Amino acid sequence: MINTLYLPELREMLSEQSEADLREFCTALHPARTAEFMERLSPDEAWQVLKFAEPRVREQIFTFFPHEEQIQLLQTQDRAEIAVLIVELASDDRVDLLEDLSSVIVDEILPLLPAEVRREILRLRAYPEGSAGAVMTTEAAKLSESLTVREALDELSRQAEHLETIYYLYIVDETDHLRGLVSARDLISAIGKPQTTLAELMETDLLSADVLEDQEDVARKVAHYDLLAIPVVDHEHRMLGIITHDDIIDVVREEATEDAHRIAAVEPLEASYLKTPILTLTWKRGIWLTILFGAAFLTAFALRRYEEGLSTWVWLAWFLPLIISTGGNTGNQAATLVITALSMGDVSLRDWGRVVVRELAMGMLLGGGLALLGYLAAWLSGLAPDATAALVIPITLLLIVVAGTLLGAILPMLFARLGLDPAMMSNPFVAGIIDILGIVVYMNVAMAVLS
Amino acid sequence: MINTLYLPELREMLSEQSEADLREFCTALHPARTAEFMERLSPDEAWQVLKFAEPRVREQIFTFFPHEEQIQLLQTQDRAEIAVLIVELASDDRVDLLEDLSSVIVDEILPLLPAEVRREILRLRAYPEGSAGAVMTTEAAKLSESLTVREALDELSRQAEHLETIYYLYIVDETDHLRGLVSARDLISAIGKPQTTLAELMETDLLSADVLEDQEDVARKVAHYDLLAIPVVDHEHRMLGIITHDDIIDVVREEATEDAHRIAAVEPLEASYLKTPILTLTWKRGIWLTILFGAAFLTAFALRRYEEGLSTWVWLAWFLPLIISTGGNTGNQAATLVITALSMGDVSLRDWGRVVVRELAMGMLLGGGLALLGYLAAWLSGLAPDATAALVIPITLLLIVVAGTLLGAILPMLFARLGLDPAMMSNPFVAGIIDILGIVVYMNVAMAVLS
Repeated sequence: MINTLYLPELREMLSEQSEADLREFCTALHPARTAEFMERLSPDEAWQVLKFAEPRVREQIFTFFPHEEQIQLLQTQDRAEIAVLIVELASDDRVDLLEDLSSVIVDEILPLLPAEVRREILRLRAYPEGSAGAVMTTEAAKLSESLTVREALDELSRQAEHLETIYYLYIVDETDHLRGLVSARDLISAIGKPQTTLAELMETDLLSADVLEDQEDVARKVAHYDLLAIPVVDHEHRMLGIITHDDIIDVVREEATEDAHRIAAVEPLEASYLKTPILTLTWKRGIWLTILFGAAFLTAFALRRYEEGLSTWVWLAWFLPLIISTGGNTGNQAATLVITALSMGDVSLRDWGRVVVRELAMGMLLGGGLALLGYLAAWLSGLAPDATAALVIPITLLLIVVAGTLLGAILPMLFARLGLDPAMMSNPFVAGIIDILGIVVYMNVAMAVLS
Repeated sequence: MINTLYLPELREMLSEQSEADLREFCTALHPARTAEFMERLSPDEAWQVLKFAEPRVREQIFTFFPHEEQIQLLQTQDRAEIAVLIVELASDDRVDLLEDLSSVIVDEILPLLPAEVRREILRLRAYPEGSAGAVMTTEAAKLSESLTVREALDELSRQAEHLETIYYLYIVDETDHLRGLVSARDLISAIGKPQTTLAELMETDLLSADVLEDQEDVARKVAHYDLLAIPVVDHEHRMLGIITHDDIIDVVREEATEDAHRIAAVEPLEASYLKTPILTLTWKRGIWLTILFGAAFLTAFALRRYEEGLSTWVWLAWFLPLIISTGGNTGNQAATLVITALSMGDVSLRDWGRVVVRELAMGMLLGGGLALLGYLAAWLSGLAPDATAALVIPITLLLIVVAGTLLGAILPMLFARLGLDPAMMSNPFVAGIIDILGIVVYMNVAMAVLS
């Protein structure tokens, strides 16, 4: 979506310092589009352009810069000007950015911020990554229940610019305990009765997230209840902040990608694929490949134990990749189905019995089908010496497919039960275990049938 | 989250037909929670309870019932009453439900609906699944630019109940061409200047989705621009409807799960894991397992071609699973990384050159590392007869890891280029190709080194 056509004109405006044009440039488009237009500017040029925007607009455009460019700007530009920008940022974005700056620069910027902002930064920083506290922002509309509709609208009108969302108004008491919620929709519906108080309008059965709750659980709640935002509270139900729909979409996308990577045995990335340095990415793949390699190496030892069988019936080796792959594929299917169902909230650990029964049934059906296919193929292709010897293949396939579906389903649930991320642990384990199991089953079936 | 404690009381209220209590029950909680409380009721009982709610509240509670229960209610209850409910539903939900009803029942219900609703149903049904048109709803706030802030607020106050969101007001001309957007935030900010017209407030640089655009692209746009909703327009830029944040979250979750399933070679499910019948799920796994099985079977033929080598050097067979698994794992990592990056919009097809260079570099590093490890392990474990023979393992590993990363990265991009879903095609292809390639490379390296 990068548009570079405009770049020469923009540079010309800059060199002429034509204020009117640059102000116009900063406000004419959606801030996200303005940010895209600016992508090819150097940090110095970009900062020059931003200076022509009002602080609020400047903050909005800045928010849509790629993270790396934001960091670069913060590190290279005038500290006092940076401090002004940082005050404008939403509290969650502010903390995210400061976390990725060098501590020397953070130490230079912090004293330039108002005491109140500084305190908030320190407080938000204390929440662990992945918790509701770490993604929430503190700019929520908090009002008292005694306000009338008229007063509430006026108050909102004054605060609108500084709030993350004005579409949910949270009703709190003097010590910030969360009492209720009035949606802007209900407020606007009541515009004909301006003397109604918020106490009369508010809903008191409302959902909230605990500040230490896992962001994935919060996202699931927001998705389930179709919320626009969810308030974040401490253990005494005091309101600390909110998480809005756009942050929830980011969480959902992030967590889904993380799951997909873990299922494929890649440690989750912090940046996007192209932005992650090659060495970091190699490391994140390498650790899991090495673990899997270790597990796979055990298969060589397992096979050596059957040296005699393998040299007597050389054709058995021809089917090794087929057996191993089929077991691995079924295990991978079952594991991925269970992992995604767990993370979508479609399956909970209480359902383990049903899952096992279903997987057993599917394992038998799939195993039965593949066994039949495998028997015919092994026999008719002439790869197996005769119809009796060919029996080794279907028997092994049935056993390994059933084992694969069961292990693939049970291991993720077991890891979830132990409080580990099911996506992280299951694929490597499932693959490793099935490889070895496959060989042991195969060779034992072969001995029994052929001897 | 099911709470069954309340069930006996609810049944008692029903048997006594105590109107006040049942009305209270329907409105006291968030509709999603009310729906959960009702989960254990029979369809008849649930319908009895719903009758005590006003049409608007009834619709809200009904919306949070699981899809299967919604269908069951629609199929079993009085057609005229059902028609009243259907009129209340958001236009997108309405179409989704009717699509899953038997056509006999749809034919009975349709004549009971107002002509306008019926026409809308027919129009929405025409949009292909997965398109913006199929997920949009038509209940958007559409206003004329000549309205003042005061008039707009009054108008919204009247319409609030029936609109999907009142937080974005779309400015359209007499023939519904989309002209601009005023957010409720801007409207409320301008409350002090009630004579301002919407024309003065509106933003004209606004994002929209084409009615035939892929829902995944629309979701990406909404996520990127942090939107609350996006208007859907036809080719003449006439506004047809909107897609709101909650539908976008659903699309993101759905597409991510679909990708994960496809990567694991499972045809995407229409319902959740536990709700999908075992035979359907077996079929969705079985077709891909069979295709993969066919590919894996080719490895047996490939190996037979090297019959002599395998019987001369029996130890070569011991390393077969290791070679196959390592190639498959690296391919799977690369494919998953590229597929998720493509679907997150982090990588576009124009980046193919960079992706290939990166994967080549990573392939060499990973392959080099595993080759070293493999050489030492093969030699020192005594599995390979001597230090020279053991060289077969590292050479093969290096080649197969590089091939795996390259194929894993290139195939999804190639399929995307051909207009196919990269997630669907890559895993089976990558796995199958790497298996055979692995064997050919391994046996040829072995011949060269050992002869």
